[in-house]
Amino acid sequence: MMRPTGRISYQGKRVLVTGGMGFIGSNLSIALVEEGAQVTVVDSQVPGCGANPANLAPVRGRLQISTADIRDAREMRRLIPEQEIIFNLAGEISHLNSIRDPQRDLAINCGAQLQFLDLCRTLNPSAAIVYASSRQVYGRPQYLPVDEQHPVHPVDFNGVHKFATEQYHFLLRRQFQVPAICLRLGNTYGPRQAIHQDCRGFIDTFLRTALLGKPIVVFGDGTQVRDMLYVGDAVEAFLRAGLAGGRAEPVYNVGSWEPVALWEIAQMLARLAGGPQPTLAPFPSDRLAIDIGDFHTDARKIHNDLGWFPRIGLAEGLKTTLQFFQGQEAKILDASRVILS
Amino acid sequence: MMRPTGRISYQGKRVLVTGGMGFIGSNLSIALVEEGAQVTVVDSQVPGCGANPANLAPVRGRLQISTADIRDAREMRRLIPEQEIIFNLAGEISHLNSIRDPQRDLAINCGAQLQFLDLCRTLNPSAAIVYASSRQVYGRPQYLPVDEQHPVHPVDFNGVHKFATEQYHFLLRRQFQVPAICLRLGNTYGPRQAIHQDCRGFIDTFLRTALLGKPIVVFGDGTQVRDMLYVGDAVEAFLRAGLAGGRAEPVYNVGSWEPVALWEIAQMLARLAGGPQPTLAPFPSDRLAIDIGDFHTDARKIHNDLGWFPRIGLAEGLKTTLQFFQGQEAKILDASRVILS
Repeated sequence: MMRPTGRISYQGKRVLVTGGMGFIGSNLSIALVEEGAQVTVVDSQVPGCGANPANLAPVRGRLQISTADIRDAREMRRLIPEQEIIFNLAGEISHLNSIRDPQRDLAINCGAQLQFLDLCRTLNPSAAIVYASSRQVYGRPQYLPVDEQHPVHPVDFNGVHKFATEQYHFLLRRQFQVPAICLRLGNTYGPRQAIHQDCRGFIDTFLRTALLGKPIVVFGDGTQVRDMLYVGDAVEAFLRAGLAGGRAEPVYNVGSWEPVALWEIAQMLARLAGGPQPTLAPFPSDRLAIDIGDFHTDARKIHNDLGWFPRIGLAEGLKTTLQFFQGQEAKILDASRVILS
Repeated sequence: MMRPTGRISYQGKRVLVTGGMGFIGSNLSIALVEEGAQVTVVDSQVPGCGANPANLAPVRGRLQISTADIRDAREMRRLIPEQEIIFNLAGEISHLNSIRDPQRDLAINCGAQLQFLDLCRTLNPSAAIVYASSRQVYGRPQYLPVDEQHPVHPVDFNGVHKFATEQYHFLLRRQFQVPAICLRLGNTYGPRQAIHQDCRGFIDTFLRTALLGKPIVVFGDGTQVRDMLYVGDAVEAFLRAGLAGGRAEPVYNVGSWEPVALWEIAQMLARLAGGPQPTLAPFPSDRLAIDIGDFHTDARKIHNDLGWFPRIGLAEGLKTTLQFFQGQEAKILDASRVILS
């Protein structure tokens, strides 16, 4: 990844990445290593949370890896001190899993984070913490585009717990002056996404289907819009927030500036992958319960404060993503063929 | 308590009150019994949560009591079916306890409620649920008076977890059509308040100090305003919300309409109790961390939708409260004298 202009580099900085084997965490860790940071990844590979040790293959031997759970207080006491910046991406990401087992989601997203953050505050209160939150805290929009003042009405347990964990970060900042920042990420896609699982957003399924050469199925009439965020742009938002620390605001939306209809995304993917035309189908009931209609974010605040903006357009991002999976990770796709065929 | 006009009575209705030995829960349970409801109270008397079996003395033998924790799934499976309305007041109420032990607060307020609500939804989805939330979810006001659209920024873990539990109720309503309603209560006071403990709001301490004949200490300059809600008015809001069920909105503010300065409350209490003049003192640091400045609510929505309005003015409410503790519960006061002198 080319380093964007307009910020200093991470050369020599000591950073911790929780959830660093996951989709966004691994892309972030790779970028940090490439900028010369001293990176420690902690990831216990909780099933369903998107971790994949192969994600870190490009930087093998160039970072430290701990396979502890962030609830492992002894190991966290070893890892947290001395860090300059903590990127906090550990957590359950599946909306549907959270509906099936909300207690598990509560334990992973709130219980574990509460303990981890308490250790951060007591052991290393001056380290910046950047938390991976989600646009899902807003729920179904009351107006578009959705800015950071939009009311919070999550439509699933995962969103409720993500918001509670955001609030833990705000409390650290308010009560203990910890420079904590929450990024509410839009629909993120790109290399290392867990497309072999079927628990997160529509784009996982779209990508996998396109790669399998099958027709992508779009629920509803296909006119719903989202803003799709390329993972490289998401990573850049983390990097900027981490450097800004206490100068940053407590919360930022991070989303692309071009809302696009699901049908358009499906068509673009089918064309890029050389596959058949997409088709429409009615919403399954479990998906309908958590559907939020149209969504796109107002990300002007992070642009104004931190100079961030999305650099990768949808066509370029999808092309890069397809190439990544076609080339480097045939095995994952083979596995999904077995699971899903 | 005189039954206000303008609603039907609870005669013969089967109701469950979780946290029914607590301050508001016991006042609600007594009112329900007096209206002829078939009342079951469930309260495990978690230390610090305000439960006091003596609170239910006026209706002894006229209601069912279960001392199970709401996490006791077997007992809840016995109690939940057949209820027409569930008043859900169980939970930790102390802001300061939540800062000292946030994991405990998470377990009591989120973990326990998540399981309890899941049982409600599966065993008895048509029963209305009325949850006791709090104005503390708003945090420090961005504008006054605070309406239900005000952004949510709790200043302590207790507020974060209360909001998460509110959201669980919204999810039941949205995903499973359970008629669930959350009441965001203002600063509530009145008979059966846990004034012998020192964990909740300033009014506990004010009342206890006045009853002990000592000078009430007001933190800051005394100009901060609150709206004080007499418990009888809070109870009436629960009763109306329970009858309204799915016709009610998901959330209502419940607060008095007369903002009053803390200094004025202290003076009024000293005068009514015949005690010495109040004094001012700087905020202790632990209180300052969770201080929210001026606060008063806009409670027009519950007035318009459910016909509720506060009937008891501050002077009348404080007088009744002092008389209650002076007359009926000398023992509690004696206990507090031992603890706090």
